[in-house]
Amino acid sequence: MSDTRFDVVGIGNAIVDILGRCDDAFLAQHNAPKGHMRIVDDTTISALYAAMGPSVEISGGSAANTLAGIASFGGRAAFIGKVADDEFGRIFAHDIKAADVTFSSKPVAGKEPTSRSLILVTPDGERTMNTFLGISTDLDDGEIDPDVISSSAIIYLEGYLFDRPDAKAAFRQAVKIAKQAGRQVALSLSDSFCVDRHREEFIDLIRNGVDIIFANESEITSLYETSDFEIAAQNAGRDTRLAALTRSAKGSVILSEGRRLEIPVAPVDKVIDSTGAGDLYAAGFLYGISAGLGLETSGKLGSLAAAEIISHMGARPNAPLEKIARAQGIIN
Amino acid sequence: MSDTRFDVVGIGNAIVDILGRCDDAFLAQHNAPKGHMRIVDDTTISALYAAMGPSVEISGGSAANTLAGIASFGGRAAFIGKVADDEFGRIFAHDIKAADVTFSSKPVAGKEPTSRSLILVTPDGERTMNTFLGISTDLDDGEIDPDVISSSAIIYLEGYLFDRPDAKAAFRQAVKIAKQAGRQVALSLSDSFCVDRHREEFIDLIRNGVDIIFANESEITSLYETSDFEIAAQNAGRDTRLAALTRSAKGSVILSEGRRLEIPVAPVDKVIDSTGAGDLYAAGFLYGISAGLGLETSGKLGSLAAAEIISHMGARPNAPLEKIARAQGIIN
Repeated sequence: MSDTRFDVVGIGNAIVDILGRCDDAFLAQHNAPKGHMRIVDDTTISALYAAMGPSVEISGGSAANTLAGIASFGGRAAFIGKVADDEFGRIFAHDIKAADVTFSSKPVAGKEPTSRSLILVTPDGERTMNTFLGISTDLDDGEIDPDVISSSAIIYLEGYLFDRPDAKAAFRQAVKIAKQAGRQVALSLSDSFCVDRHREEFIDLIRNGVDIIFANESEITSLYETSDFEIAAQNAGRDTRLAALTRSAKGSVILSEGRRLEIPVAPVDKVIDSTGAGDLYAAGFLYGISAGLGLETSGKLGSLAAAEIISHMGARPNAPLEKIARAQGIIN
Repeated sequence: MSDTRFDVVGIGNAIVDILGRCDDAFLAQHNAPKGHMRIVDDTTISALYAAMGPSVEISGGSAANTLAGIASFGGRAAFIGKVADDEFGRIFAHDIKAADVTFSSKPVAGKEPTSRSLILVTPDGERTMNTFLGISTDLDDGEIDPDVISSSAIIYLEGYLFDRPDAKAAFRQAVKIAKQAGRQVALSLSDSFCVDRHREEFIDLIRNGVDIIFANESEITSLYETSDFEIAAQNAGRDTRLAALTRSAKGSVILSEGRRLEIPVAPVDKVIDSTGAGDLYAAGFLYGISAGLGLETSGKLGSLAAAEIISHMGARPNAPLEKIARAQGIIN
C-alpha cells in the first residue's frame, strides 16, 4: 500500500502499567473483578497501591501494546493518546517511540497525571486491572490528526475509549475520516464489562463503519447477550466483514464473508502473566492483514504474538516478533 | 538475638532501575564500561535514555536489593536511603516497604529528583549501569538514626557511598555507632572501578571496623592490586574476620579465621539478567549469618538467592526466597 504512511494507526489510552502479584483473596478484599478492567479514582488507586506487593512499571495501554507489537513485526505503526508532562508520561513516550511507533502527541502540563493501571496477576497468570485514567480523560477529537488517519491503511480503536464521551467523539471522528479516505477501521471490544456498558453503540458501529472486530469469548457473548459462543460468532460474522475471536487456550476463530477458520494457540511453557494477550493477538493479526498475508497466516501471527506476551510479565514484546515468526517459518 | 529490632540494616543509594536490552556496540558507542557502574549527569542520562530501547522500571539500589532479599528469607530488615518527593521516590518507597523492609526516610521535596540507574543488559546477561544520583547526593550523617543502627545485629554498607564525601561521613558515623553498640559491620565493595577510586580508605576500613566483606573477583583483585585471585583472597582472609568472595559461575569462596570454604553456584537454566547477583548473594549470606546457620549454609543461601535473581529481569526477588530454600532443604 504505497499511498500510505502507516500500516496501522491506533487510538487509545496511554497508560503505564504497575504490575504486581497477588492471590485471589486480595482481589476479593479490594473488590477488584478478576480478569476484568475497572476504572478507579485517585483515592482508590492510592489505597490499592499501598496495599499491593512489590511491583514493576512497564508501558501499557491496550491499543498502544498492539501498535508496539505491529512495529515488532516490522509494520509501520503510529499511536495517538494523551500523556502528562510527568515521569510516567516520559516513560510512556520513551517506550512507544523506542518500539518504533510514531507518537507525536504533546505532553500536557499542569492538569491530571499520566494514566496508570495497577495490574494484579494471580498465580494462574490471570490479570485484573485497576485503571486511573488521569490525563487520558483529556483525549478528545482535537487529538485526531486527519493526515495521520487518512494516511494509514488501518485505524485501530480500543473499546475502552467508549467509557468517556470526549474520547467517544474522538473515536467517531477518526472513523469518519478513515471512511472518507477509504481506509479500514478495526475495533477491539476491550472488556466484557465495557461491552455491557455500551452494547447498543458497539453493535451500531460494527454494523456501520467498523470493518474488523477483535473480541474474546466473554466480550463477544456479552455483546450478543448469549452464553453460546457459536451463536455469538455467527452474529459477529453476519454483522462485520471480518471478526477475529479469541478463546484463550482454545485458540481463535476467524469469520470473514461466510468463511470460518480455526487457529490453534501457539505453545507456551507456562503462562506467567496474561496481560496483553488480546492486544498482541490483534498485533499479529493486523500486521498479517496489512501485509496481505491472508487470514490463516494472520491468525497464526496473532497466536505467536500472544504466546510471546503471556510467557513473561508485561504487555510489550520482549523479543522481536518478526524474527520469531521467521524462525517458525510463518513468514519468509 | 533478642536484644535487636533488626537482623540487618542497610545504608545505600535509593535507586529505581530502568532496565533495557542492548548489544555490545551500543555500550561502546555510549562509552559505557561493560559490566561496571558509572555515575552520569543529567544530560548524559537523558541522552542515553532517548537512545536506548523500550525499558521497564524496577526498584533497585545495591544495599536496598540486599535488604529486600533478606526480608524475602524472613529476616528483619531495615533500609536507610534518600528519595525525593516524586514518582520514582514513591515507587522506591512502595516497593521496599511492600518487600517488608522498614523504610522511614522522609522524601525530600523541591531539590534533586530520585536517583535512577539506566541498566543496559547485553545478550550474555551482563549488566552495565549508568547511575544518576539525584537526591542520593543528599544522604549524609544526619540520616543515620542511632537507634536503628544500634538495634541491628548487622549494619550493611554499600561501597558506592564512598563516591561522595557526605555519604562517606554517614558511612563512618554508622560504623562508629555500630561498633559502640557491639554490632557487626558488613561492607560490599560494589564495583572494581569504585574500589580503584577508594583503595586506601577501603583497606583501612576493612582492617579497622569492618567485620564482613563482600566482593567479586574483579573487586577483590582490584583492592589488593593483583591479577591473582588466590593472593587477593589470602589478603582478604588476613585483613578481615569474614570475607565472602563471589566468582560468577565458579561459585564463591568464604574465608574466616583461617578456614576456607568453596560454595558452588546454584543451577540456573539461562542467565537472563545478572543485575543484583552480588546483592542477592549478600542477602542470602547475611540472612544465614544473622540466623546463626553457619558459613556453609549461609553461602548456599547466597548462591540460591543469586540464582533466583539472575533468572529474570530486575534485582528484586520474584519469588519468596525462604520458600525456595525450604523446598531445597537448605533450611528447615
